[in-house]
Amino acid sequence: MTASYQKRCQQRVDAALDQLFQAPRHELDRLYQAMRYSVMNGGKRIRPLLVYAACEALGGHDEQADGAACAVELIHAYSLVHDDLPAMDDDDLRRGQPTTHKAFDEACAILAGDGLQSLAFEVLADRRLNPHEADIRLAMLVALSRAAGPAGMVGGQAIDLGSVGHRLDQQALEVMHRHKTGALIEASVRLGALASGRADERSLKALHAYAQAIGLAFQVQDDILDVESDTVTLGKTQGKDQAHDKPTYPALLGLDVAKAYALELRDQALHALRPFDERAEPLRELARYIVERRS
Amino acid sequence: MTASYQKRCQQRVDAALDQLFQAPRHELDRLYQAMRYSVMNGGKRIRPLLVYAACEALGGHDEQADGAACAVELIHAYSLVHDDLPAMDDDDLRRGQPTTHKAFDEACAILAGDGLQSLAFEVLADRRLNPHEADIRLAMLVALSRAAGPAGMVGGQAIDLGSVGHRLDQQALEVMHRHKTGALIEASVRLGALASGRADERSLKALHAYAQAIGLAFQVQDDILDVESDTVTLGKTQGKDQAHDKPTYPALLGLDVAKAYALELRDQALHALRPFDERAEPLRELARYIVERRS
Repeated sequence: MTASYQKRCQQRVDAALDQLFQAPRHELDRLYQAMRYSVMNGGKRIRPLLVYAACEALGGHDEQADGAACAVELIHAYSLVHDDLPAMDDDDLRRGQPTTHKAFDEACAILAGDGLQSLAFEVLADRRLNPHEADIRLAMLVALSRAAGPAGMVGGQAIDLGSVGHRLDQQALEVMHRHKTGALIEASVRLGALASGRADERSLKALHAYAQAIGLAFQVQDDILDVESDTVTLGKTQGKDQAHDKPTYPALLGLDVAKAYALELRDQALHALRPFDERAEPLRELARYIVERRS
Repeated sequence: MTASYQKRCQQRVDAALDQLFQAPRHELDRLYQAMRYSVMNGGKRIRPLLVYAACEALGGHDEQADGAACAVELIHAYSLVHDDLPAMDDDDLRRGQPTTHKAFDEACAILAGDGLQSLAFEVLADRRLNPHEADIRLAMLVALSRAAGPAGMVGGQAIDLGSVGHRLDQQALEVMHRHKTGALIEASVRLGALASGRADERSLKALHAYAQAIGLAFQVQDDILDVESDTVTLGKTQGKDQAHDKPTYPALLGLDVAKAYALELRDQALHALRPFDERAEPLRELARYIVERRS
């Protein structure tokens, strides 16, 4: 991932996201502040990047992908707010800052998360924010609602919480991750492809294979970083997974095999992109970035 | 509201809802059980009733409205699950049964609520569950996402939580209720009208006026019941609003004036329906039912 491409996408989606948190009346100021706080926090914007890069891979332009980029990031941000709650992962720190329920309060964090989820779907449905013909907007809404919902990300969270202290084998761990993080990553790529206005079944299938591989690679690398990195670099509490006795790839496979697996998944992702020309270069760079990142 | 009409709509939406909670794999059983528990609890289904009745008022048929009826009830159910959480209203009892976080656990209740929200939008977007042309499905999605989100229901919850212990005047109380319960009731009527395939601007405007009036009437009556009814009839803890020093219409206006206000709002609702023929009779009956109900 070239830093300049990453920065350009970040700035683009941040500018679009920033428009969404104007409270329509003063009574709602605090809720909108909490939503803004939860989203405008210097996040890496990996999912929006995937949206832009997938759109570009099919010859689309960035401005076609802004709505989809916002929507996937809103879903991601809401999931982090709820994931950090005391009843869930009980985390005080996120990207080096107090989590939303610490900076505001628990009730406000629950509601901010709920509101961010609604907002994601509103953005996709609204023609002004997502200027595509009706069928494309609906295809995006179907993909994102499934990916975010109980058969996707939320289901993954449930599996994850249910697995603490249990011994999972690699297959069970992958089922968890395919839901918890994979579904939204796959949806990001799909929404980007749809946003290009040029998605066909064949390209969607190839991009799906790419997304599956990097989704898993992302998680394997996250587990590796939880072991290797320190709290300051990571921006969240290091060693948390181990402390909570959560199943991880390094715990299951050993650190070296986990690292080799991450690289293998990167290669699978690159293989899936073989039918695409140089416009898929950002997707390729992202596959490399995911397994090389240190935070 | 004739009891038979109410029962017919309840059975219809319950049958459609029941299809939505089949876990796609066994790891997700508990999450889907928690979602099912949160929804299939003998609720009155007022919002689905509004969907069916508004569809009928414009000459539509019940089967056109099933998807919309499910979607509004899923949003309502999720809001109750989150509203009952310890960090929010901290309620142990809902419709005479343990609340979701009591029957399962807090993390599961947060996730079940999150999943129900996603599911609502998935149902509206999916042509098999909501068989309308793309423009109608999108209009439903725009209306429901706005009504459910931070400028609607979630915003109302935030205003409500922020107002505990404060002295609100009637105007501030109505701002809160227009968001917290009014927005979803208005969306239910709008979705029903859209589901008929025959909604025009004039009928949507009249139905909006109707929905605003009954939305507020519903809340005034809720406040009256919190004072007058007992816990067994109500199925939730009686006197809770007073105990929490929440602003209510009886506290603000006195019980007799609050009762007169509920009746005035019913009459406003009936007035808004004057352009409609006998097919709007269920909507009229519902306006009467809302201020006459004892639970």
